Amino acid sequence: MSEIKEIQEALLKFRDDRDWKQFHDSKNLATAISIEAGELNELFLWKDTVNCEDVKPERLKEELADVFSFAFLLAEKHGLDVKEIILDKIKKNDEKYPVEKAKGTAKKYTDL
Amino acid sequence: MSEIKEIQEALLKFRDDRDWKQFHDSKNLATAISIEAGELNELFLWKDTVNCEDVKPERLKEELADVFSFAFLLAEKHGLDVKEIILDKIKKNDEKYPVEKAKGTAKKYTDL
Amino acid sequence: MSEIKEIQEALLKFRDDRDWKQFHDSKNLATAISIEAGELNELFLWKDTVNCEDVKPERLKEELADVFSFAFLLAEKHGLDVKEIILDKIKKNDEKYPVEKAKGTAKKYTDL
Amino acid sequence: MSEIKEIQEALLKFRDDRDWKQFHDSKNLATAISIEAGELNELFLWKDTVNCEDVKPERLKEELADVFSFAFLLAEKHGLDVKEIILDKIKKNDEKYPVEKAKGTAKKYTDL
Repeated sequence: MSEIKEIQEALLKFRDDRDWKQFHDSKNLATAISIEAGELNELFLWKDTVNCEDVKPERLKEELADVFSFAFLLAEKHGLDVKEIILDKIKKNDEKYPVEKAKGTAKKYTDL
Repeated sequence: MSEIKEIQEALLKFRDDRDWKQFHDSKNLATAISIEAGELNELFLWKDTVNCEDVKPERLKEELADVFSFAFLLAEKHGLDVKEIILDKIKKNDEKYPVEKAKGTAKKYTDL
Repeated sequence: MSEIKEIQEALLKFRDDRDWKQFHDSKNLATAISIEAGELNELFLWKDTVNCEDVKPERLKEELADVFSFAFLLAEKHGLDVKEIILDKIKKNDEKYPVEKAKGTAKKYTDL
Repeated sequence: MSEIKEIQEALLKFRDDRDWKQFHDSKNLATAISIEAGELNELFLWKDTVNCEDVKPERLKEELADVFSFAFLLAEKHGLDVKEIILDKIKKNDEKYPVEKAKGTAKKYTDL
């Protein structure tokens, strides 16, 4: 079994042991990702781009794990292959952000 | 190479081809996750928990890929093993949400 | 003094009593709005569009107050008149969502 | 009529002209706040706490207006007095963050 499939199986077991599939519609899973992303951001709030790296590793692991968990559950719900959708998106971004234009600048593609 | 390592290598190559590591401090990566989570949620906005499943697959793939991409980059930056942090979090949640108390209810652990 | 000015004065006093202006750059204030919006959303997580109305009023008041507080601080920082920017945005949305096209549909203006 | 009441009346008129009250349950309004907060954050993405102040004023006005609009609609839906809930929250924060402990530090109250 692939690594990602293993992760998803563990998440599904946790969910099904609690009979929580009924709550896991796509809208709620997307909301959950957003909430967990907020908690992740709280670790860096009021910091700057330098001192933000001094973060409690235990908290970072937990909040990042929460974001990943709901994202893997949403991908699984829609039968999406996580590696495939990321590689596809990189291809699209390769076109939106050609190296010669995007190198060294953080501008959005619409402003390049 | 593991599947997740492969994904991260592809993301790092995309980043380094553009010399973007300089922008990828942890705070900005966390902000990026949050922004992409917002775009993901837009797909489900004004829908209910039933009709939300009727979503454009192409948009879902792209927005979910964006969330994953920044999450994988943040994990890589901190040398975190994604499978390990998720399995660790499931173990913690197993204690916070014991099956006999949590089964069939969406209550937060603080209200169980 | 206008009602909004009164609110902003109270927020500024709270901030300045603690010497917190130094942390309130626009990026951090925007992050704070996002985090508080996440906490607000947590009140409705796993609910549907009907049972979501059964929310703890005290929590709702607090989380919504937090969103407003950072939004008022960001507006104040940039010298923006809150009533004016909202009325201006309504005017723009009037053009993006003409009544005859938008009535009764939740479609985005790009899909109308 | 108070300033905030005026803003809310304008928002309700825009909503009712389009028969959109049906979509404005509390859960969706909270999601909308979160999405707009994400768009607001995009203005500051990849910036640091200094160069983030160099932001396009027109975009800032629009994104901040969107956050405010959905927040005012959610407050109106629950009959909340915006000034009152903010002043109440400031009082609570006064206790959580006493001046002598909180002055000059960005620590969360749980770490003070």
